[in-house]
Amino acid sequence: MNPDTTRLARARERMGALGVDVLLLSVGPDLPYLTGYEAMPLERLTMFVLPVAGDPVLLVPRLEAPRVEARPDLFVLETWDETDDPVARVAALAGSVGQVAIGDQTWARFVLDLQRALPGAEFSPAGRVLAPLRVVKDTAEIDALRRAAHAVDGIAAEMRTRPFAGRREIDVHRELVERMLEAGHERANFAIVATAANAASPHHEPSSRVIADGDVVLCDFGGTMDGYCSDITRMFVVGEPTAEVADTYAVLVAAQEAGVQAATVGTPCEAVDAAARRLIADAGLGEHFVHRTGHGIGTEAHEDPYVVAGNLTPLAAGHAFSIEPGIYLPGRFGLRLEDIVVATATGPDRLNEAARDLAVVG
Amino acid sequence: MNPDTTRLARARERMGALGVDVLLLSVGPDLPYLTGYEAMPLERLTMFVLPVAGDPVLLVPRLEAPRVEARPDLFVLETWDETDDPVARVAALAGSVGQVAIGDQTWARFVLDLQRALPGAEFSPAGRVLAPLRVVKDTAEIDALRRAAHAVDGIAAEMRTRPFAGRREIDVHRELVERMLEAGHERANFAIVATAANAASPHHEPSSRVIADGDVVLCDFGGTMDGYCSDITRMFVVGEPTAEVADTYAVLVAAQEAGVQAATVGTPCEAVDAAARRLIADAGLGEHFVHRTGHGIGTEAHEDPYVVAGNLTPLAAGHAFSIEPGIYLPGRFGLRLEDIVVATATGPDRLNEAARDLAVVG
Repeated sequence: MNPDTTRLARARERMGALGVDVLLLSVGPDLPYLTGYEAMPLERLTMFVLPVAGDPVLLVPRLEAPRVEARPDLFVLETWDETDDPVARVAALAGSVGQVAIGDQTWARFVLDLQRALPGAEFSPAGRVLAPLRVVKDTAEIDALRRAAHAVDGIAAEMRTRPFAGRREIDVHRELVERMLEAGHERANFAIVATAANAASPHHEPSSRVIADGDVVLCDFGGTMDGYCSDITRMFVVGEPTAEVADTYAVLVAAQEAGVQAATVGTPCEAVDAAARRLIADAGLGEHFVHRTGHGIGTEAHEDPYVVAGNLTPLAAGHAFSIEPGIYLPGRFGLRLEDIVVATATGPDRLNEAARDLAVVG
Repeated sequence: MNPDTTRLARARERMGALGVDVLLLSVGPDLPYLTGYEAMPLERLTMFVLPVAGDPVLLVPRLEAPRVEARPDLFVLETWDETDDPVARVAALAGSVGQVAIGDQTWARFVLDLQRALPGAEFSPAGRVLAPLRVVKDTAEIDALRRAAHAVDGIAAEMRTRPFAGRREIDVHRELVERMLEAGHERANFAIVATAANAASPHHEPSSRVIADGDVVLCDFGGTMDGYCSDITRMFVVGEPTAEVADTYAVLVAAQEAGVQAATVGTPCEAVDAAARRLIADAGLGEHFVHRTGHGIGTEAHEDPYVVAGNLTPLAAGHAFSIEPGIYLPGRFGLRLEDIVVATATGPDRLNEAARDLAVVG
């Protein structure tokens, strides 16, 4: 990622509008979004201090300074030594402030320390400032999401030719992780491989269960490529599916298509959720679709906008999100189908192109 | 990990002593330490609510409930649906409380939401309650750390027979990740591969730099196996080392040995740091040892006790930590040597047994 000064300027504009005096960012996606630098999720504090006016400072542990790509247009780099107090340093950089916006994923221990070090300040999550910027992707960001989507499309296609029976879930999991790295992802974020009854658990952890004839296999995998995330779910079945699996899958495909087609600019997120949900409910399976229809995606695997009941936010051009209904029959099997979609002025742009049928494998 | 009720009882005893009314745990190692369950680091809140008296409740998103292994001896499982407010649920479970201890790595957005939902409460980090328990490892935990150490010892030994020249840092990185998984780790936490001048950056990210004749190669890798972490650093050199590299490495080996031998029960952590540091300073290289000597290790890759100047905590039997001095010559090369050590009544017990010489490789 190679952010320019425009993002900083827009962040400051929003800080001004919200009355935020200083933005404090640590671990999580906001920091690389503004500076290109990603903090290590460890006990040594990294913090970007962005005052609404004045010089932005990136404070890092001295031993991590060589990891930082200098961006004098974006920040002054400062370091702290092992025996320094980084919280006191941040407080001194922030100065006398009333309103502090702190990165949403900052560790609690640092939040509490900073609240004590800045006793007059009121803290709010930085998402107030940055989520509205991050949610609208520009052309370069959509291109990056599309490249990541195409990389996992290629893996999904290859998996149709691979053997499944006799392998363990964990083996297929590792293959997916390895293939994501080979396909150009710098990081594999997850690779759910859930077979037969395990697929009825939406966030199943891959186990040592051996895949057998007749199993459905749910593969939901994604990673980060050039700073932007992929996320795809495709379904496989070892040998011919039963009529029940085939019929249920047909309902799911129709529901997913309805969700995608509903994702037009101006449509509230909850209406997109309802469009997919309605078809599953009409088939008498509504109680088995136990999660929202989708989540936003960008530098973070899950971010705004959430495609969920109660979210009245209308989709805007440049919103990127998953459409991933699922049908889960406890103790029996589960099915999910997922693509990444971008809302555009000319309608929904589905980034994933891999075949969406239930792939029969060996 | 398979915690028993003793840990919960000890946590509550400490809560009572500190005047903590309720413990709130989410992502991070405290939750699996007490319950065996690890929360997903995502936007849906998971929270363990442990009142000082009364029933402990584990609140999870409904779709993640199938991941939870039931432990009726440890908690009641409750779920929240996509349109519920999990913060309000936690606040209701906590009830009217004065002192809240919240997991150190809980996301800021949830800390701030909970502070608003529990306006009368004072928040402190859960580390106050749990770090003193977690820092002393019992026999089963030391056995787990030893198994994890032996797994990476085996990898370090194998690497001595592998080709390095002509491969990229990222290739060796991927090999280490793959080998940790093959060796029984459920997760590879990091695998630093830093060559030549890159090794002068202690937390270097593996790059596409191709390893060449004469390069020193720093490999610092670790993961999680049966819930407990490994962490080892070994040094390799392609072809015979220069006299300067060999001499500098000899200083490092002596410093690391001094650190290990100083790690006796009752010795303050900072004295262990000083013991290793002194030998490097005596060789005129003190300014090039830019980090602390070590960190505690357990279910977390870095935890108490930190072997650092200013930490007056005396080592106790069952403390487990790294001893990993380094010497970094910017623009030229860097060296580090690391073992995991447990303080015991009969002296330091070094868990890693892999050869510590500078391995000459092809």
